[in-house]
Amino acid sequence: MSRIDGRTPEQLRPVTIERGWSKHAEGSVLVSFGDTKVLCTASVTEGVPRWRKGSGEGWITAEYAMLPRSTNTRGDREAVRGRIGGRTHEISRLIGRSLRAVVNLKALGENTVVLDCDVLQADGGTRTAAITGAYVALADAIAWAVDRKLVKPKAKPLDGTVSAVSVGIVDGVPLLDLCYEEDVRAETDMNVVCTGGGRFVEVQGTAEGTPFTRAELDSLLDLAVAGCAQLDGVQRRALGAIETA
Amino acid sequence: MSRIDGRTPEQLRPVTIERGWSKHAEGSVLVSFGDTKVLCTASVTEGVPRWRKGSGEGWITAEYAMLPRSTNTRGDREAVRGRIGGRTHEISRLIGRSLRAVVNLKALGENTVVLDCDVLQADGGTRTAAITGAYVALADAIAWAVDRKLVKPKAKPLDGTVSAVSVGIVDGVPLLDLCYEEDVRAETDMNVVCTGGGRFVEVQGTAEGTPFTRAELDSLLDLAVAGCAQLDGVQRRALGAIETA
Amino acid sequence: MSRIDGRTPEQLRPVTIERGWSKHAEGSVLVSFGDTKVLCTASVTEGVPRWRKGSGEGWITAEYAMLPRSTNTRGDREAVRGRIGGRTHEISRLIGRSLRAVVNLKALGENTVVLDCDVLQADGGTRTAAITGAYVALADAIAWAVDRKLVKPKAKPLDGTVSAVSVGIVDGVPLLDLCYEEDVRAETDMNVVCTGGGRFVEVQGTAEGTPFTRAELDSLLDLAVAGCAQLDGVQRRALGAIETA
Amino acid sequence: MSRIDGRTPEQLRPVTIERGWSKHAEGSVLVSFGDTKVLCTASVTEGVPRWRKGSGEGWITAEYAMLPRSTNTRGDREAVRGRIGGRTHEISRLIGRSLRAVVNLKALGENTVVLDCDVLQADGGTRTAAITGAYVALADAIAWAVDRKLVKPKAKPLDGTVSAVSVGIVDGVPLLDLCYEEDVRAETDMNVVCTGGGRFVEVQGTAEGTPFTRAELDSLLDLAVAGCAQLDGVQRRALGAIETA
Amino acid sequence: MSRIDGRTPEQLRPVTIERGWSKHAEGSVLVSFGDTKVLCTASVTEGVPRWRKGSGEGWITAEYAMLPRSTNTRGDREAVRGRIGGRTHEISRLIGRSLRAVVNLKALGENTVVLDCDVLQADGGTRTAAITGAYVALADAIAWAVDRKLVKPKAKPLDGTVSAVSVGIVDGVPLLDLCYEEDVRAETDMNVVCTGGGRFVEVQGTAEGTPFTRAELDSLLDLAVAGCAQLDGVQRRALGAIETA
Amino acid sequence: MSRIDGRTPEQLRPVTIERGWSKHAEGSVLVSFGDTKVLCTASVTEGVPRWRKGSGEGWITAEYAMLPRSTNTRGDREAVRGRIGGRTHEISRLIGRSLRAVVNLKALGENTVVLDCDVLQADGGTRTAAITGAYVALADAIAWAVDRKLVKPKAKPLDGTVSAVSVGIVDGVPLLDLCYEEDVRAETDMNVVCTGGGRFVEVQGTAEGTPFTRAELDSLLDLAVAGCAQLDGVQRRALGAIETA
Repeated sequence: MSRIDGRTPEQLRPVTIERGWSKHAEGSVLVSFGDTKVLCTASVTEGVPRWRKGSGEGWITAEYAMLPRSTNTRGDREAVRGRIGGRTHEISRLIGRSLRAVVNLKALGENTVVLDCDVLQADGGTRTAAITGAYVALADAIAWAVDRKLVKPKAKPLDGTVSAVSVGIVDGVPLLDLCYEEDVRAETDMNVVCTGGGRFVEVQGTAEGTPFTRAELDSLLDLAVAGCAQLDGVQRRALGAIETA
Repeated sequence: MSRIDGRTPEQLRPVTIERGWSKHAEGSVLVSFGDTKVLCTASVTEGVPRWRKGSGEGWITAEYAMLPRSTNTRGDREAVRGRIGGRTHEISRLIGRSLRAVVNLKALGENTVVLDCDVLQADGGTRTAAITGAYVALADAIAWAVDRKLVKPKAKPLDGTVSAVSVGIVDGVPLLDLCYEEDVRAETDMNVVCTGGGRFVEVQGTAEGTPFTRAELDSLLDLAVAGCAQLDGVQRRALGAIETA
Repeated sequence: MSRIDGRTPEQLRPVTIERGWSKHAEGSVLVSFGDTKVLCTASVTEGVPRWRKGSGEGWITAEYAMLPRSTNTRGDREAVRGRIGGRTHEISRLIGRSLRAVVNLKALGENTVVLDCDVLQADGGTRTAAITGAYVALADAIAWAVDRKLVKPKAKPLDGTVSAVSVGIVDGVPLLDLCYEEDVRAETDMNVVCTGGGRFVEVQGTAEGTPFTRAELDSLLDLAVAGCAQLDGVQRRALGAIETA
Repeated sequence: MSRIDGRTPEQLRPVTIERGWSKHAEGSVLVSFGDTKVLCTASVTEGVPRWRKGSGEGWITAEYAMLPRSTNTRGDREAVRGRIGGRTHEISRLIGRSLRAVVNLKALGENTVVLDCDVLQADGGTRTAAITGAYVALADAIAWAVDRKLVKPKAKPLDGTVSAVSVGIVDGVPLLDLCYEEDVRAETDMNVVCTGGGRFVEVQGTAEGTPFTRAELDSLLDLAVAGCAQLDGVQRRALGAIETA
Repeated sequence: MSRIDGRTPEQLRPVTIERGWSKHAEGSVLVSFGDTKVLCTASVTEGVPRWRKGSGEGWITAEYAMLPRSTNTRGDREAVRGRIGGRTHEISRLIGRSLRAVVNLKALGENTVVLDCDVLQADGGTRTAAITGAYVALADAIAWAVDRKLVKPKAKPLDGTVSAVSVGIVDGVPLLDLCYEEDVRAETDMNVVCTGGGRFVEVQGTAEGTPFTRAELDSLLDLAVAGCAQLDGVQRRALGAIETA
Repeated sequence: MSRIDGRTPEQLRPVTIERGWSKHAEGSVLVSFGDTKVLCTASVTEGVPRWRKGSGEGWITAEYAMLPRSTNTRGDREAVRGRIGGRTHEISRLIGRSLRAVVNLKALGENTVVLDCDVLQADGGTRTAAITGAYVALADAIAWAVDRKLVKPKAKPLDGTVSAVSVGIVDGVPLLDLCYEEDVRAETDMNVVCTGGGRFVEVQGTAEGTPFTRAELDSLLDLAVAGCAQLDGVQRRALGAIETA
């Protein structure tokens, strides 16, 4: 069986990571998973939120949002409605947790990095693209902070790498990296966040239609782990490309 | 190794489900998982939200909240702050999705059931207690709607049963149904929602500290499936107790 | 003439006060006036709001709310609407004022007690039940603060006792402690807050239909004073029951 | 004993009611109780709020607000804070209830009158001035509606007249119509709304310091009834002045 | 051609400025441009907003609002809607900028003046009346601050005078100081803020219908400059009237 | 004198307009004025807002926003703060008015076009870039609507073209198209919106420091008219490029 865009079940969409997209941010990336495009910026500030002051530890947080016409039908602007929706909250929290999993907050010192992930165009997998891109923006921002000596010499705030991918079951077949059309038809939908070492940071599986079996869950996890390993390679090449320049 | 409250790793806390708690609601339950107490009410109204009108299908939604002093330290009231927090949004959405997974919305007809899950006292596992209790309140509310002939005769809106439990790894040991003290110490924390038939509706695992391995994930899933099977029994007995009366 | 639930005009509904309902709060009470059930918790924190700092005096405040399905028809959640309604505001302020009337804020020192009164089930008289129950929760919280030496030895922050009851005229007859069905039919509705010594803290009378005469007002005040005297006894017994245990 | 401004205890401040203040509103009044000045406008619209449609009855509602610098110290604008405070809510509701008490909503037909009471300058008694002035604006608006035949011929939407005054105990002496300086020193503070016939529409008494006795309550009610009788005269003269013009 | 109210094209409406309107504010003015009436109060407080602390400079800000029934049809109260509309924001900012243009913030020292401009009755030109009136209120407030020695002796916080007027093209004819009926028919609408010396502080021209030519723009600017010169005279007479008293 | 980036006073920054940027929107443009980059999407929907229904006319509206890190220092997200700031409101309204000036709303029929202008990177002139880009996105969206026959054949909804540019006086020299560094140093700042025919749609000039003279205003207008004429050429080439493809 071939997929809507000709991919095999275990194939990612073309993934690109364009570093240094913004002239202002300490780290910035335009990440694409096929037609999904997310602008990720990392902003470093000295100091931490009030509840963390004096702890000697830093903080990493994230805010996700979609431009109103990033989707097929225009959505209301959350700023205009005056409140953030549940889905936005949920994804922002997921991105923040995922990145904190690979940061040594003590080594970061009392500095804060805010990751803004704004979806410019959506075609499924916006949260997984956001995590994958935000990691690279974060790595650049931390390198910037190290250069500026905001972080103590020899402290290594980054403990590892992290990427994310969606998987799902469509017409009974487990598929990697769903595009929007596949996503709406999926019976089960799962987002998996892995470290470069193949461990799990987050596993979020949801039965959209029929509840799923342990065997289905296992095959989805297999696909996701393999997909994250590929994304890890893309991240490393993106980071290397400029470092060697 | 014995747990803080003397349980074995695979043991649930005492679980009680008190039906008919409220004189007003079509279904109502006070559910306890140990010291966690959640009041779940199910409210039936004819009609559906605007975006669903004319579909011939019903709707199930949920709202979760914590009383300000349900926790050890008093939290601000979300109504006073003027906005619902991300965690509240996230859990409300989880409860709604979990219950919809076992409801045949077509059979429900254009009726809406709102599940309100208000945490009166919190000691870990409030969302899983809420799902487990809300299912029973929902079953009572649907029975009420069938009696009132809001639902077509012979239509069976309930496709199955659903319950939920938390699992986590504390000091390297996978534990079932974490109380608050265990929850804050857990390296990995997972909430699992299962049908009575042992299939998965939701799997949400999060590494709080070190990312977790596939083997750890597997052992947590085993614990959770066994825990949900026990909760399914508690639900059936609660529902049976009154039905046979 | 006998009332809807068989009471005489000057009879209270069964009133119960269950102390120590919550394991977390410094004081907590589940109070029932018939089918009206309100959970009152008292939370003690050191320090006072900014506008009171340095005054040497404490602060007592209250927040009242109804669970969405505490009533016959489900009400919208104020947190979801993003604003607190006028009635909620009004009752929260009334409860706070009523309790402050019997507290010596100087003796309390710079400590704050927040009374949360959440209506679990409503059948008329929720505000009067809340005041009556909150007084007991407050007394327990202050005893806790005295034990912890947050309050100076020999300081007696409690100046007296306070309770509240509703009265109204239904079909021309003055009645004590209206249930919901009586309340909606009342031509005049009054809430009276009295000290244990029979003095008035608040008198709030409203003509729902025809304006009322001085004679009617007088007979309502007589009923209310007698009702509060009975409630004072219930409070004393509730506080004594545990103290002697 | 003479009062701060030389009045006797049972004397009102100079009260003026200037009708036809606004060129736009169907009824409008600038009312002064001494230095307290409130602009009251009555706006008539055909139709009623959704929850009243088809009832055949009209609706009267009120909104009270203070200009930021109507007081001695500038207050934040509620529109800027994004929410209405409890006191504002409470007074708006009081004004609406007080006016509805003298309107036959059936005779009004499905029309709505909104009373806006904006305090231009505050010196105590703003809510009682607002009620007293709003009644006159309402009378003008209803006359306008009768002229335009929005109301059925011979229907008499106004059942009576209504006015309001504050009373309080200062240094042990019951005083009528407190100015701001007296208000802050009052041990007991009461707002009373009476019909022209001397019946009570609202009685709201609050112990600011020591709880008050039945005897004190009685003397305050006596003062208030006498004060409202005088205000009734001022209202009648204001309405007569133009009617005979 | 004569205008709707008989004026010539280059004629202002009757303009009055009543100083000392409020007993509380440090400066206060009731300004009328024909039937447009705006109450402007100036409130002085020691200190500046946080972002300006330690700068040694003061701050001037303004808040504009319309009473709900200042207009022909009642508008919703922004406090009730819970948010300030775009037009309100825009005009508040315009007033603040216009006044800051003639204030030497360094000479003011770390003091803040808030100008509240509340439209009591609207008939076109509310923002220009507000600026013109607010200038006079500001002058009084600054004189008050100088008297109280909040401002250093010999410092002269006021650099000049400022007034504003609207101009527009109606049926092809450039007109000064549009009333509401002219405003809605205008093809082009412009608000101009000038100093007493005839320089421009703000020029805001908008094509409501057909875009306008440079020649039209020039003739509107001519009219506006002449109008502001007249308003400058009115302001000087208002300020002089009391100073010489 | 040469400018910070080497331009002459009357020179625009490099301006690019990239059409068809988004796969979802009916019209979309990424416009750059130097380092200022704004994504403009035009969304067509059938129908108009409620207040316009039955008028036979269409509606054009705009929403402007900045990504949090489009600027040098990260700004708070307006959705998170829960309200839209005054500047955002003001610019959104300006963009909407500017585009409506060249649209024949009757010819558009009862269709709505929403222009979303999201600033991806800011370096001065974001509102003028937004207007200039949004015009092109609007032209594409209207062409789309004509193709789909949403608009009547032969109706020509576009009456002309519109573009915008900023001008200002820096160190006494009038400059065209200010970048951020020039903007903060400008004594006078003006945004001018012109039609392709050289008429004015909006003129908004503000004295940041010293008020400006008529001669200065004239020289700024000359610069702006010449700048808009160049932008008109860029727009035509961008639109032509694809049309001839």
